[in-house]
Amino acid sequence: MTRDAATGHRPGRFHLNAFLMSTGHHEASWRLPESSPDHTSTDLAYLQRLARTAEDGLLDSVFFADGPGLRSDVGRRPAGSLDPLIVLTALAAATERIGLIATASTTYNSPYNLARRFASIDIVSGGRAGWNVVTTAGPDVARNFGLDDQPAHAVRYQRAAEFLDVAYKLWDSWDDDAVLGDKEQGVWADARKIHPAAHVGEHFSVAGALTTPRSPQARPLIVQAGSSEDGRTLAARYAEAVFTAHQTLGDARAFYADLKTRTVAAGRDPQGVKILPGIVPVLGSTEAEALAAERELDELIVPEYARRQLAATLRVDPEDLPLDRQLPADLPDEDEIEGAKSRYTLIVELARRERLTVRELIGRLGGGRGHRTLAGTPEQIADALQEWYDAEAADGFNVMPAVLPRGLEEFTGHVVPILQERGLFRTAYEGTTLREHYGLERPASRYPSSTAGARTTAELAGVGA
Amino acid sequence: MTRDAATGHRPGRFHLNAFLMSTGHHEASWRLPESSPDHTSTDLAYLQRLARTAEDGLLDSVFFADGPGLRSDVGRRPAGSLDPLIVLTALAAATERIGLIATASTTYNSPYNLARRFASIDIVSGGRAGWNVVTTAGPDVARNFGLDDQPAHAVRYQRAAEFLDVAYKLWDSWDDDAVLGDKEQGVWADARKIHPAAHVGEHFSVAGALTTPRSPQARPLIVQAGSSEDGRTLAARYAEAVFTAHQTLGDARAFYADLKTRTVAAGRDPQGVKILPGIVPVLGSTEAEALAAERELDELIVPEYARRQLAATLRVDPEDLPLDRQLPADLPDEDEIEGAKSRYTLIVELARRERLTVRELIGRLGGGRGHRTLAGTPEQIADALQEWYDAEAADGFNVMPAVLPRGLEEFTGHVVPILQERGLFRTAYEGTTLREHYGLERPASRYPSSTAGARTTAELAGVGA
Repeated sequence: MTRDAATGHRPGRFHLNAFLMSTGHHEASWRLPESSPDHTSTDLAYLQRLARTAEDGLLDSVFFADGPGLRSDVGRRPAGSLDPLIVLTALAAATERIGLIATASTTYNSPYNLARRFASIDIVSGGRAGWNVVTTAGPDVARNFGLDDQPAHAVRYQRAAEFLDVAYKLWDSWDDDAVLGDKEQGVWADARKIHPAAHVGEHFSVAGALTTPRSPQARPLIVQAGSSEDGRTLAARYAEAVFTAHQTLGDARAFYADLKTRTVAAGRDPQGVKILPGIVPVLGSTEAEALAAERELDELIVPEYARRQLAATLRVDPEDLPLDRQLPADLPDEDEIEGAKSRYTLIVELARRERLTVRELIGRLGGGRGHRTLAGTPEQIADALQEWYDAEAADGFNVMPAVLPRGLEEFTGHVVPILQERGLFRTAYEGTTLREHYGLERPASRYPSSTAGARTTAELAGVGA
Repeated sequence: MTRDAATGHRPGRFHLNAFLMSTGHHEASWRLPESSPDHTSTDLAYLQRLARTAEDGLLDSVFFADGPGLRSDVGRRPAGSLDPLIVLTALAAATERIGLIATASTTYNSPYNLARRFASIDIVSGGRAGWNVVTTAGPDVARNFGLDDQPAHAVRYQRAAEFLDVAYKLWDSWDDDAVLGDKEQGVWADARKIHPAAHVGEHFSVAGALTTPRSPQARPLIVQAGSSEDGRTLAARYAEAVFTAHQTLGDARAFYADLKTRTVAAGRDPQGVKILPGIVPVLGSTEAEALAAERELDELIVPEYARRQLAATLRVDPEDLPLDRQLPADLPDEDEIEGAKSRYTLIVELARRERLTVRELIGRLGGGRGHRTLAGTPEQIADALQEWYDAEAADGFNVMPAVLPRGLEEFTGHVVPILQERGLFRTAYEGTTLREHYGLERPASRYPSSTAGARTTAELAGVGA
């Protein structure tokens, strides 16, 4: 591990993404007196306010999770959501520099349409688009798309890899200099510099070129958030940022080392993938104040909602999860889970390791859904982030405020300045694209740039083929 | 036909949509000295300028055509395009009142995703979204979606009808008062007021409810543009505005009467569908100036591009279309065409009726692609529009300027004021939604609004079901 000689710290800076979700990541956040029931993920003015706060704090990016289906527990917390690519586009108009990342499913989209939408957003945002690639777990969503159940976990991941292969071809389909605009000869674009995808694979056949010129970033930043074996394999091949959930430094370091090793094995630069564990900050001007705020939130949880969700995740009957007992001993292995494997294991291991009752487990999950809750002063939170960064457990963090907008305002207002003082975070945006924020290059095209020699109008325009 | 006693004119006002496309609808418009090769349908700043011009002119709406595939003749004219729903969202941020209509395919989308996207745009635009429903002709696009060829015309239209049925269910899936925001009881939404689509049909099975609350317009304005038998049937059942192409007053009146009759037969109010023939205005301060401008454009057409396209449409070899002869006698019947049927017939009838040579036909199609070109002074164009409106050939017009941005600026600057003076067009926006601009009601939900009686938290929140 390299260290700065003067400070003893890992050199460089880290990255911060703000994961935005209605009134905050704590499931009871909407019940606080300060929260508005209208502050949902369908309220554009509110989402714009959050994105501007993140941008004022110089964060690398904002992020929206997504699934193309409505949760069944609509009473529990704000449940509505807009299509996240529509949200990114609307936020592109309301911001200048911050990166814009959205989840989209490789299981319930077609590669041509989705690659085209991300290229379009990259163009209208001036190179600020990112795509969190998910395979979308669960039978409920599958039934919105003509299926009786979700495809098997392994099949979903095979499809995801091929989906990305097709998308990469499509994003390279126009050379950067394909448009000639030659009014004299009457040739708008050089057909030789536009490349059909010509993809024939197991899951997809896509013949043509995209309708969009090569975008400012060439392709969106590719984000991945599954930590299962299949998820890690996909991340090592394609991901440029990884959102992940770890409760302990040891787990986070092991994941970090494993994914960097896999990335190298996949023939990529390990610096080309940025690993960002989730943290749920609950800030106070004293530690006691922060802990009180956390307690206030936990007390607002209606346990019945969470117990039913936990039972569904664990594949047991809710009646088998008495609130004041530990989890039953005979739960399925991760291998048997076709849904969100790594999340399943994280929950079971957390409960077993800390011998939590169902009620306690619900409290922990209600705050951060498996992510690490950090309740404390700005100084304490900055220390905690620095510790993980120095220990090579993280290249940055996925910031998931328990309560929004306040938690984000407090984080950018009080934690970010400490990180800046310590030289750990930027004091101004240095680039204009999302890739530049994350210190990543614009990918080269797979096609060698053509050297235009003698040409006829018909050749150029594709009418003589 | 009702007439105003004082003026002898048909009472009321008509509607104007601006059909926006890169440097204009004339295929050679991009070659004019005034045109920028960068003024494409991927240049957001340019599209925003066009939309603002249309809004300054108080037009009902702007519209973008679309197909999810790149044209093969990329030399001919600006060929790139963004995803049109991304464009609508970006334009929503840049405008206040004007309606925003985009084409999307029922053949190459899934109803859950597309219904969700239109609901999202309707929400972020404050009720200004419109959807031009198309079935997307042609094998090239089919090959971008894993098919070897396009589904048959009749199958595409059956799928379109079922697609709309599903979308309508999804758009009603939240009652307007579904969100309670009841912090006290901890119930965010009333599960009894959210209705799963529960659709099982021939082409689609969609189980769940949409993720979006019922939008300002409840559903986007439904637009339809196919004039084949199948297209008219679909329009009569679902369309609220129809874009259509007619060269003669007789044809336009016959189409208008037929579609209104079919709409009544489908159990709908004939006022509930607005019929908007396309017009391609070429303006001049004198008629001679306008005709010279039209001639200048036609002379910039490279005939080889158009001849190849015409040959593909007519299913003949380009060699069989000598430029200075009329069309061959033995062309296929419309019945044999699986692509864009009504367009095929329009072209063949135009050529036969006016005994046009291939070169002349190409000139006519190069300007308006089958739509009616009107070259003249603002007064002459206003007269032509008024004539068709008075004769019940139109409820308004789809304005397709030959050259953009100039043609739109001239139309709003010189033709609109004449129409306003004659009482034929609004002098201010009276409503805020696209439906209001077109004089249409917000549709009622299919579900009777529930009368909330005694309830338990579990009932409300869907956890006790």
